[in-house]
Amino acid sequence: MTAGLTTAQLTEKHQPTLDQALATIRSRGYWSPYPEHPKAYGADGVPGSLGAEEGHAAFEALRGKRFELDQPGTDGWTATESSPYGLELGIEYPHADVDVLLAAQRAAMPAWRDAGPRARAAVCLEILARINARTHEFAHAVMHTSGQAFMMAFQAGGPHAQDRGLEAVAYAYAAQTEAAPPEAEWVKPQGKREPLELRKAFTTVPRGIGLVIGCNTFPTWNGFPGLFASLATGNAVLVKPHPRAVLPLALTVRIAREVLRDAGFAPDLVALAAERQDEGIAKTLAVRPEIRVIDYTGSTAFGDWLETNARQAQVFTEKAGVNTVVVDSTDDYKGMLSNLAFSLSLYSGQMCTTPQNLLVPREGIATDAGHKSYDEVVADLAGAVDKLLGDDARANALLGAIVNDQVSARIDAAAQLGEVALASRTVANPDFPGATVRTPVIVKLDGAKPDAEAAYLSECFGPVAFAVAVDSTEAAVGLLRRTVREKGAMTVGAYTTSPEAERLIEEACLEECAQLSLNLTGGVYVNQTAAFSDYHGSGGNPAANAVLCDSAFVAPRFRTVEVRRPVAPAAQA
Amino acid sequence: MTAGLTTAQLTEKHQPTLDQALATIRSRGYWSPYPEHPKAYGADGVPGSLGAEEGHAAFEALRGKRFELDQPGTDGWTATESSPYGLELGIEYPHADVDVLLAAQRAAMPAWRDAGPRARAAVCLEILARINARTHEFAHAVMHTSGQAFMMAFQAGGPHAQDRGLEAVAYAYAAQTEAAPPEAEWVKPQGKREPLELRKAFTTVPRGIGLVIGCNTFPTWNGFPGLFASLATGNAVLVKPHPRAVLPLALTVRIAREVLRDAGFAPDLVALAAERQDEGIAKTLAVRPEIRVIDYTGSTAFGDWLETNARQAQVFTEKAGVNTVVVDSTDDYKGMLSNLAFSLSLYSGQMCTTPQNLLVPREGIATDAGHKSYDEVVADLAGAVDKLLGDDARANALLGAIVNDQVSARIDAAAQLGEVALASRTVANPDFPGATVRTPVIVKLDGAKPDAEAAYLSECFGPVAFAVAVDSTEAAVGLLRRTVREKGAMTVGAYTTSPEAERLIEEACLEECAQLSLNLTGGVYVNQTAAFSDYHGSGGNPAANAVLCDSAFVAPRFRTVEVRRPVAPAAQA
Repeated sequence: MTAGLTTAQLTEKHQPTLDQALATIRSRGYWSPYPEHPKAYGADGVPGSLGAEEGHAAFEALRGKRFELDQPGTDGWTATESSPYGLELGIEYPHADVDVLLAAQRAAMPAWRDAGPRARAAVCLEILARINARTHEFAHAVMHTSGQAFMMAFQAGGPHAQDRGLEAVAYAYAAQTEAAPPEAEWVKPQGKREPLELRKAFTTVPRGIGLVIGCNTFPTWNGFPGLFASLATGNAVLVKPHPRAVLPLALTVRIAREVLRDAGFAPDLVALAAERQDEGIAKTLAVRPEIRVIDYTGSTAFGDWLETNARQAQVFTEKAGVNTVVVDSTDDYKGMLSNLAFSLSLYSGQMCTTPQNLLVPREGIATDAGHKSYDEVVADLAGAVDKLLGDDARANALLGAIVNDQVSARIDAAAQLGEVALASRTVANPDFPGATVRTPVIVKLDGAKPDAEAAYLSECFGPVAFAVAVDSTEAAVGLLRRTVREKGAMTVGAYTTSPEAERLIEEACLEECAQLSLNLTGGVYVNQTAAFSDYHGSGGNPAANAVLCDSAFVAPRFRTVEVRRPVAPAAQA
Repeated sequence: MTAGLTTAQLTEKHQPTLDQALATIRSRGYWSPYPEHPKAYGADGVPGSLGAEEGHAAFEALRGKRFELDQPGTDGWTATESSPYGLELGIEYPHADVDVLLAAQRAAMPAWRDAGPRARAAVCLEILARINARTHEFAHAVMHTSGQAFMMAFQAGGPHAQDRGLEAVAYAYAAQTEAAPPEAEWVKPQGKREPLELRKAFTTVPRGIGLVIGCNTFPTWNGFPGLFASLATGNAVLVKPHPRAVLPLALTVRIAREVLRDAGFAPDLVALAAERQDEGIAKTLAVRPEIRVIDYTGSTAFGDWLETNARQAQVFTEKAGVNTVVVDSTDDYKGMLSNLAFSLSLYSGQMCTTPQNLLVPREGIATDAGHKSYDEVVADLAGAVDKLLGDDARANALLGAIVNDQVSARIDAAAQLGEVALASRTVANPDFPGATVRTPVIVKLDGAKPDAEAAYLSECFGPVAFAVAVDSTEAAVGLLRRTVREKGAMTVGAYTTSPEAERLIEEACLEECAQLSLNLTGGVYVNQTAAFSDYHGSGGNPAANAVLCDSAFVAPRFRTVEVRRPVAPAAQA
């Protein structure tokens, strides 16, 4: 066990990191305190961190056992995970009597509130530091719940998720300290009479308990922002993980509880609500009066349900969307194809940011390699994906595993929707024979045919791309607008060398509120966003009502209570 | 007509005011750029402002005429106001074809978005400056729609409302400029390889059209924050005034349109939606897809309806609440009584911040004038109110007029609920014989009797106070907690000399999220809040989901759209 640490010690330890985060969310350049290379961890790396073998051993030691959390109100145990790689996990998590657990969480809150924004930020940064030190362990946990390949699970589930958590702490700290000074003197002149004088004390108070409803594909990356934003603003946090991705968030909760206890706070400020198979406790929890903030990533149906029914809570949702790439022209045809091929393949397209619809003028496009017809563009893209994934080892490292059977079914169904430009291939994974590994399918659709609309105007989550032939770039922009407005989008990509086309696409994204990546041909991909610099989604179209992270994501999580009193006569003298 | 002004000129003109507002929302001391004394306006006062007689004449010139606004889509005229003072207003306002008007508003938005936060703030400050110059005219407009007495209409409807508008502009400006710089370079090291480099452009984009649903009692004070917060963040604003309080907001819309036109923007960025008697257009407007932000002050029933049904919009509401004063002890008995008497009397208790329930231990309280029994405290308070309002001229100047018949009916009904400690008196107003002027009624209730609960646990809007006998100060705090949690509260007051009681009351307000005024015995009253320093409500209890004003009130009104592109080779060289 780690020795107790005062909040003053934690504040001193973490203040430089917090200061840098505060500066970077304003400047929005590149920065991260958490190394993203696996070799940066272990004996010669981040102090106190687990190396590759230690991290793997720590993960292995969790398998087939009860995951103890020492939470109040545990009324049973539940195991609902199965690794997309076929590995038997067999980990049982405590199941909570919600009445007992929520009561304990509420009881813990006044002391956490009284600690103030700076101490809370320091405790949050200590939690993140301890999570960071165990990145190798988290990598296996994320890999074997989400199906991400190891390197992606390591980076996106590790340092990149930690970045997003830190970013949320920075926004939360800034919002609270900007809201009001702890004390103020208010002196209103009254002409020749004595001025009116009041002393005012301002306290940041929490809304209540924040509920984080985790997702299957990015349990930490999508879970940390809400968790840390709520915690840093003084709320307790109840984490309801996806039943197939409990471990990464259970580890998170355990570490958070350790740090809170070490720092002299009640560990119940962070707790886990693991559910039994098909129990559906999110619906019950979401409308409890104690729950005042909800962070959710998942289906549009349940997101809409939460927004409509959890009226007592501030609800932040990320839901389904349809991401578009407009292909107008390029001065780097090869770069465009290889960039798009990578975007479609990464984690088998199971990212909320993966492009789905590639809009290509049916007359073709101008490129540095000459004019390319619609058919040529689609065939060349299929070839680029084929080439990228030609080697099975590389394919496995990029694709990861299919997260559930519904994704596989969608791949097969998509092939019936139109002419298949690239068929999905099944790749064997020698390390994990139980894994389902599939390459993307690319289907050609005619944007002018009404019966194709149903396909390209719905989210087809997984490695499915539609190459939609459109009448012109103007038509592409029209369809882009309609798609964002009606279906939402986390990302928009575009390739063009025409200033006029660029202006049209930019204006569409500004008006429909979507984040745009232009002419990516190198090592940055439309589906990747960097904390402190890129917003994740816009919060202004149907794909999400929030971004990770901005002021609107943290400011409604707390309130400021003022106590004002006359200045005492002694103080006036 | 005023000559055209460039946004650069407006920015230069108003930057010092904006800077001071930005500093004051952080320091929360006293400040206002808008003088609150009527004599500060006119020839020798604020440059270009109307003096008392000019303002009155300007108001008189509006009576009995059509109020021209030059809005698109006017399909008729409507007159729904009647002065609580009995004055015939007879002003007809344009009625809008909403399809035409909303389309015009949308069309105006891209240029307003492109102007950027600084220019928008400057235009908003020019609107406020021109409103300020016509404060005398507004005072009559507010008086003859809300029923406020002239001095209150002048101050609360004039400079204090303008302060709240300016405060909203300052918060909006801060939130937008903090969200992101206009441009950023992002350079991610890649070890020995070339770094990844992106150029990123960030644009504040509006959510859509903001709908301001005005109230009868404080059309400008409650209307300006939402109006200016939405406008300053790039949205167009449609103002739907209360049918009995159109004029103050119609004047506001007309001035805003003038300034927008002068500054080179489409005036349709601000428009009026006056309704016909019983037309109920708020319900129709609130669910239009173009409406993305709603600001509402009014009944809990319609506020709840908006929160549940206007799912496409960010909804900010101020609803009903039950305000409590805990009376534990005091070292200034006379000061306490006169302060409370004023609070109960001001604008006949028709403020959302007026105390309703005075909780007094049935054993009595300790004071500097000796122990006072419950009966004595209530009788002495009744005496203080009687004394304050003993002179009819003074009573009229403090009470104003009853805003509608429902308030009168509540006064009469309240007298049936328990022992009347102070009966409501009807005061004649020699200037306006048609005005209904009533003094407060104070009714004694026993907090231990369940049948009294229905009375003191509902909002009884108007000059009705319940002196509730409770078992102890602890019981008072318990009832305070329950009242805030179940019914909401805009204000809480307390009188105590006991550190232990003070601690209990403070903790209750922190946990239940209510703004507390302690031991007010001088010239500051629990029902008054000052812009830049006091929050109006907490946003954390059922009385309101927002405060006027803080970051949470402005941050969700805009989004930030990022366009990222590789750094061009030329720029890299």
